[in-house]
Amino acid sequence: MNYFYLVPAASVVALLFALYFFKRMMRESEGTEKMVTIARYVREGAMSYLSQQYRVVTRVFIVLAILFAVMAYFGLQNSWVPFAFLTGGFFSGLAGFFGMKTATYASARTANAVQRSLNSGLQIAFRSGAVMGLVVVGLALLDISLWYLVLDHFIEDAGSGHKLVIITTTMLTFGMGASTQALFARVGGGIYTKAADVGADLVGKVEAGIPEDDPRNPATIADNVGDNVGDVAGMGADLYESYCGSILSTAALGASAYVLNPEMQQKAVFAPMIIAAIGVFLSILGIFLVRTGEKASVKQLMASLNRGVNVSALLIAAATFGILYLLGFSNWVGLSFSVFSGLLAGIIIGKGTEYFTSHSYRPTKAIAESARTGPATVIIAGMGNGFISTVIPVVTIVAAILISYLSAIRFDVANMMSAANLSLGLYGVAIAAVGMLSTLGITLATDAYGPIADNAGGNAEMSGLGPEVRSRTDALDALGNTTAATGKGFAIGSAALTALALMASYMEEIRIGMIRLGHTLLEFADGATVEVAKATLVDFMNYYQVTLMNPKVLSGIFIGSMMAFLFCGLTMNAVGRAAQKMVEEVRRQFREIKGILTGEATPDYALCVEISTKGAQREMLLPSLLAIAVPILIGLLLGVPGVLGLLAGGLGSGFVLAIFMANSGGAWDNAKKYIEEGHLGGKGSEAHKATVVGDTVGDPFKDTSGPSLNILIKLMSMVSIVMAGLTVAWSLL
Amino acid sequence: MNYFYLVPAASVVALLFALYFFKRMMRESEGTEKMVTIARYVREGAMSYLSQQYRVVTRVFIVLAILFAVMAYFGLQNSWVPFAFLTGGFFSGLAGFFGMKTATYASARTANAVQRSLNSGLQIAFRSGAVMGLVVVGLALLDISLWYLVLDHFIEDAGSGHKLVIITTTMLTFGMGASTQALFARVGGGIYTKAADVGADLVGKVEAGIPEDDPRNPATIADNVGDNVGDVAGMGADLYESYCGSILSTAALGASAYVLNPEMQQKAVFAPMIIAAIGVFLSILGIFLVRTGEKASVKQLMASLNRGVNVSALLIAAATFGILYLLGFSNWVGLSFSVFSGLLAGIIIGKGTEYFTSHSYRPTKAIAESARTGPATVIIAGMGNGFISTVIPVVTIVAAILISYLSAIRFDVANMMSAANLSLGLYGVAIAAVGMLSTLGITLATDAYGPIADNAGGNAEMSGLGPEVRSRTDALDALGNTTAATGKGFAIGSAALTALALMASYMEEIRIGMIRLGHTLLEFADGATVEVAKATLVDFMNYYQVTLMNPKVLSGIFIGSMMAFLFCGLTMNAVGRAAQKMVEEVRRQFREIKGILTGEATPDYALCVEISTKGAQREMLLPSLLAIAVPILIGLLLGVPGVLGLLAGGLGSGFVLAIFMANSGGAWDNAKKYIEEGHLGGKGSEAHKATVVGDTVGDPFKDTSGPSLNILIKLMSMVSIVMAGLTVAWSLL
Repeated sequence: MNYFYLVPAASVVALLFALYFFKRMMRESEGTEKMVTIARYVREGAMSYLSQQYRVVTRVFIVLAILFAVMAYFGLQNSWVPFAFLTGGFFSGLAGFFGMKTATYASARTANAVQRSLNSGLQIAFRSGAVMGLVVVGLALLDISLWYLVLDHFIEDAGSGHKLVIITTTMLTFGMGASTQALFARVGGGIYTKAADVGADLVGKVEAGIPEDDPRNPATIADNVGDNVGDVAGMGADLYESYCGSILSTAALGASAYVLNPEMQQKAVFAPMIIAAIGVFLSILGIFLVRTGEKASVKQLMASLNRGVNVSALLIAAATFGILYLLGFSNWVGLSFSVFSGLLAGIIIGKGTEYFTSHSYRPTKAIAESARTGPATVIIAGMGNGFISTVIPVVTIVAAILISYLSAIRFDVANMMSAANLSLGLYGVAIAAVGMLSTLGITLATDAYGPIADNAGGNAEMSGLGPEVRSRTDALDALGNTTAATGKGFAIGSAALTALALMASYMEEIRIGMIRLGHTLLEFADGATVEVAKATLVDFMNYYQVTLMNPKVLSGIFIGSMMAFLFCGLTMNAVGRAAQKMVEEVRRQFREIKGILTGEATPDYALCVEISTKGAQREMLLPSLLAIAVPILIGLLLGVPGVLGLLAGGLGSGFVLAIFMANSGGAWDNAKKYIEEGHLGGKGSEAHKATVVGDTVGDPFKDTSGPSLNILIKLMSMVSIVMAGLTVAWSLL
Repeated sequence: MNYFYLVPAASVVALLFALYFFKRMMRESEGTEKMVTIARYVREGAMSYLSQQYRVVTRVFIVLAILFAVMAYFGLQNSWVPFAFLTGGFFSGLAGFFGMKTATYASARTANAVQRSLNSGLQIAFRSGAVMGLVVVGLALLDISLWYLVLDHFIEDAGSGHKLVIITTTMLTFGMGASTQALFARVGGGIYTKAADVGADLVGKVEAGIPEDDPRNPATIADNVGDNVGDVAGMGADLYESYCGSILSTAALGASAYVLNPEMQQKAVFAPMIIAAIGVFLSILGIFLVRTGEKASVKQLMASLNRGVNVSALLIAAATFGILYLLGFSNWVGLSFSVFSGLLAGIIIGKGTEYFTSHSYRPTKAIAESARTGPATVIIAGMGNGFISTVIPVVTIVAAILISYLSAIRFDVANMMSAANLSLGLYGVAIAAVGMLSTLGITLATDAYGPIADNAGGNAEMSGLGPEVRSRTDALDALGNTTAATGKGFAIGSAALTALALMASYMEEIRIGMIRLGHTLLEFADGATVEVAKATLVDFMNYYQVTLMNPKVLSGIFIGSMMAFLFCGLTMNAVGRAAQKMVEEVRRQFREIKGILTGEATPDYALCVEISTKGAQREMLLPSLLAIAVPILIGLLLGVPGVLGLLAGGLGSGFVLAIFMANSGGAWDNAKKYIEEGHLGGKGSEAHKATVVGDTVGDPFKDTSGPSLNILIKLMSMVSIVMAGLTVAWSLL
C-alpha cells in the first residue's frame, strides 16, 4: 500500500505544475488591443461550443446513468457503476475545459512573444500545451486514486482474492464515462473544426482568392475555434480515455491473473498505476528540458522537443525495471520488456507516420508530383500511399502484442495458451499499453502545442502583425504539424493496444457477470433457474474458447469491420453537410454585407461560429449513439461470441482504417505545403490547385473520421464491458 | 452415382449452347470496312495482352507446381495436387480466352446490328455475353466431373468414409489453380484497363478536349481493349474461381460432415454439384427468355433481362427442394433454405449496390449536387456514401450466414457449436454460396454483355456511324452499367461466402494434413517423433477451438485487415504509375505526329496498347506474389491460429473495403453521367468537371483495387488450404 501513495502524489504534483505553467503564461502580455479582441472572439467561441456540447453530453450521461442504475437494481451490475461512470465523464470534461481555456489564453500571448524571439514563442506555446498534458494525467490519476481508496474502504473482502477483482472491474466502468465524453469531444469537435475549415477554404481561398486566416473571411474565427475544440479538447479527451483505459484494464487483468496469490495480486493491480505515476514525474522533467537559446533555429527547436520526449522515455524504461523488481514480481525482467515493447512501439509508429506524411520523404513528394496531372491523380496517389502506410503500424503493433505476451510468460511458447499463461500474457499486453502511454504528460504537451502555434499564426495574421511575425509563427506551426502527425500515430497506436486490453477485460467482466448473476438468482428465483445459472457458469470455459468457426463470431467480425466504415461514412457526410451550410453563410455575408472584401465592414464572425456549433451538435448524435447502441444490440442478438467478434473485427478494421485516413490526410496537407514552398510551380500554379483539392479531402480524413475511429474501437469494448451483465442475463433467457 | 451424371451432362450442354450462340453471332455482319478494322485492332490488342499475361502466369504456375510436387514428395501433400492445380489454372485460362475471343468478335457486330434496332443489338451483345457465362460454368463442371471420376477410380477406399474426404480435399486444390489464374487476370486486367482509361481521359478529354472514344486519341484502342481484359476476362476468371471454390468446399465439408454415414456422405458430396448442374439448365432457359419486340424501349430491355434472371432464380429455388428431397437428406427442408438464403442474399446485395450507385436514387444525386462546390466535395461525398453503402451487403451476408447455418442444423441453437452441428452448419453456409452462384450462367451473361455494348459504342464512334447509332449504343451501355453494378455486388458477395466456405475447409485440410503427416512419420521416423505426431493429432481439437484471446489469432486478424489495405494501395499506385506512362506517350504522339488532332494522321494505337500491356505485366507481380506469400509466411510464423486470424481479418476487412471501393467508384461514374444528362449545368460546366475528377478517382476504385480484393480474400484461403500440410509439419518442428 505504501507504493500506492506515489499515485495520488504524482497526480497532485502534475496538477500543481499545470497550475504553475498556467500562471506563468497568464503573466505574459496578450499584445495589442486588436490581438486581445481576436483572442477573446476565439475564446468565447470555443467556450460557447464547449458549454453547448457539455449540455448535450450531460443529457446522454443522465440517460445512461439511469440505465446503469436500473441494471444495478436488478443485480446485473455493481451499484457503484453509475457513480464511477459519471465521475469518469466529469473528470474528462474538466480536463478538456482546462486544456482549452489555457490554449485560448495562450495563442495571442504566443503571437506577441514571437515578436521577441522564436524561442519565447516556443516556450509559451509548449508550456501551455504542457498544461493540457499534465491536467490530463493529473486528473486521470486523481480519479483512479480516489476511486481505489473509496472502493477499498467500502467493498467487503469475501476472501480468495475476489475483492480486488471486484474493485478493478468496477473502476473499469469509469473508463466508460471517459469514453462517452471522448466520443462526443472527438466526433463533435472533429465535425466542428472541419466544417469551419472546409467552409472557410472553399469560399475564401478558392472563390474569393483571399489568404488563409484573412480577417475579411467571416468563417476565420470559427476556423480558429475549430483548431481548439478539435485538436486540443478532442485529442485530450481521446488520450485521457486511453490513459485511464490502459491503466484500469491492466489492473483488472492483474487482479485476475494473480487471483491465487493475494500478495502479488495487490502489486499487480498497483504496478500499472505506479509506472504511470513515475511517468508523470519524468514527463515533468522532460518538459523542463525543452529549452533552447534565444536565437535557436527551427531545427534546434525540433531537437529540443525531441530531447524532452526521448529523455523521458528512456528514463521511464529504466525506471520500469526498478519498479517491477522492487514490487517483487518473479518475472520482473519479462514484464519490463512488455512495458518496453509498448514504449518502443509508440515511438516506431510515430516515426512511420512521419515518414509517410512529411514532405521530407519520398511518399509525400510523389503525391505532390502527381499534381502535374491534376486533382484526380493527387487523390489516387494520396490514397495509394495511405493504404500502404498501414503496414508499419500494423506490423509494429503485432510485434508489440506478441513480444509483450510472450515475454510476460517467459517465452513458454509450448504452453502459451494454458489458463495461467493466458492471464499472465494478456496482463503483459495490457501493461505494454501502459508503457506506451507512460510518457503522455510530455507527448500530449508536444501535441497540444500545435494548435496553439496555429492559432497564434491566425491571430498574427488577423491583427496585421506583419510578415516577419507571421513567418515565425509559420515556423512554429510547421514544427507543430510534425509533432501533430507523430501524435496522431501515437494516439491510434495507443488506442489499439488499449482496446485490446479492454477486450481481454471484457472476458473477465463476463465471468464476474456470471458469478454475480448466479448469486442474484440464488436469492430471488426457484431452484430450476439456479440450475441453469450454474450450468452456464460451468459452460463458461466453452464460451471463453471463442472459436473462429462459430458463425456468431464470424458475423460479429463482419459487423465490426463494417462499423468502422459506417462510422467514417457518417462523420464524412456530416462534415460535408455542415461545411455546405458554412459555405452558404459565407457567400451570403460576402453578398449582403457590403464592404467586407475591401476591409471596410466587419463580417459577422459569431454567426459562423454558431453555424459550426449547431452543425456539429446535430451531426454528432447519430454516429455517437450508433457506437453505443450496436455493441449492446449485438450482445443481445449474438451473445458473447458475437460481441467478441464485433470487437475483434472493429479493432482490426478500425485500426487500419484510422491509420489510412490519418496518413492520407496528413500527406495531402504536406504535399500542398511542399508546392507552396516553391516546388512544381509554387503557389497559384495548377499543381497547387490540385493539391488544395487533396488537402480539402484530407481535412475530414485526418481530423474528423480518422481520430473518431480511435474512440470507436475503445468505446465498443467499454460498452461491452459495462453491458456484460445484461448480455449474460439475456443469453440465459 | 446416377444423379452424378447430371453434372457432366450439364457441362456438355452448357458448352454446346455456348458454341451455338458463338456460331450464331459469327454469322452476323461486322459492318463497314472501318468497323472491321477497328474491331480487329481491339481483338489483336486483347489477344496480345492475353498471350503475354498467360506467359507470365505460366512461369508462376510452373514454379508453384514444382513446389507442390516437392511437398508431395515429402508427404506434406497428396501427389495429385500439382496436377489438380495445373488443370484448375488451365481451364480458367481457357474460359478467359473463349470469353474474350467472343466479346471482341461481338462488339462490331453489335454496333452494326444496332443500326437495325435496339433489340437486335441487345440480342447479339447479350448472347455473346452468354457464351462467357456458359463457357465458365461448362468448363468448371467439366473439370469437376473429370477429376471426380479420375480420383474415384484411382484412390483406394481405406474405409470409414475417408476416401471421399481425400477426393474432395484434393479437388479443392484445383481451386488454387483457378485462384492464381484469377489473381493475375483481375490484377493485371484491372491495371491494364484503368491505366489506359485514366491515361486516355486525362490527356484526351481534359487536356485536348476531344470526346470519349475519339479515333484521334492514341489511347482509345487500348481503352477499348481494357474493357475486354478487365471486365470480360477478369470478371470471368473471378467468378469461375468462386463457382469452383463454392462447389468444391461444399463437397469437402459434406464429406466430413457425413463421414460416419457412407450413403449420405456420397450424396452430400454430390448435392452442390447437382444444384449447380440444374442451375446451368435453368440459366439456359433464362437466356432464351431475354427477348423483346423489335421496337422495345430501354426500360423494356431491362425488364426482359430481369425476367430472364428472376425466372432462373425462382426455378432453381424450387428445384433445390426437389433435389435435396430426392437425394434423401433428412433435413432437406433446412438445407434448401440454406441454398435459398444464399440465392436471395445475392439478389439483395445486387439491389443494394444499385441503390447506392444508380443516379435514379438519392445517394448518387447528392454526390452530383456536391459538385457545385468543386471536386473536393465530390470526393468527400462519394467516399462518405461508399462507406455507408457497406451496411446492406454486410447485414445481408451476416443474415445469410446465420440463417444458412441455423437452418442446416434445424435451429438447434442450444447446441449450435457441438461437433456434429458445427460440421453440418458449415456445410449449410457453404451450400448457401452454391445457391448464390447457381444462376451464374445467366448472371455472368448480363455482366459480360456490358463491356460488349461499351465496345460497340466505341466502335460506332470511331467508325463515324453517326449520332443515332451512338445514342442507341449508349442506351445499351447504360443498361450495361446497371447490370455491371449489380454484377459487381454479386461478385463480391459470392467471393465473401466462398471465402468463408474455404476457411471452413481449411480446418478440414489441417486435420487431413495431420493424419497424413502421422502416416509419413510412422514410415520414416523413429518412435519419438511418432509420439509427437500422435500427441499433436490429439491436440487437434484445441487447435480447432481458435480462441479470439490467442495473441496469434489477434495478430493474424490485424495482419489480415492490413493485407486488404496494402493490396489496395499497391494496385492503386500501380494504376497511377502505368497511367502516367500512358499520359506521357499520348502527349508525345500529339506533339510529334503532326496532324493527329486534325484527323489527317493516324495515331500509333499499337504503341499505347503495348505500354498498357507492359505496365500491367510489370505492376501485377508484386501485389500478386504478396497475396500468395503472406499466408505461407504467417502459417510458418504463427501457425494455424495465425492463419485463421489472417483469413478472418482479411475476409472482414477485404469484403467491406471491396464494397466501399466498388460503390464509391460506381456512384462517381453515375454522378458524372447524371450531370451529362443535363442536370446542374450539364456537360462542360464546372460541376461537370468536378465529377470528372470523381470519375477518374473512381476508375481504379471500382475496376482495379475493388475487384482484386475479391480474389485476395479467396486466394488467401486457397493458399492456406494447399499449404496446410507444410504449416502442420513446420509447427511440429
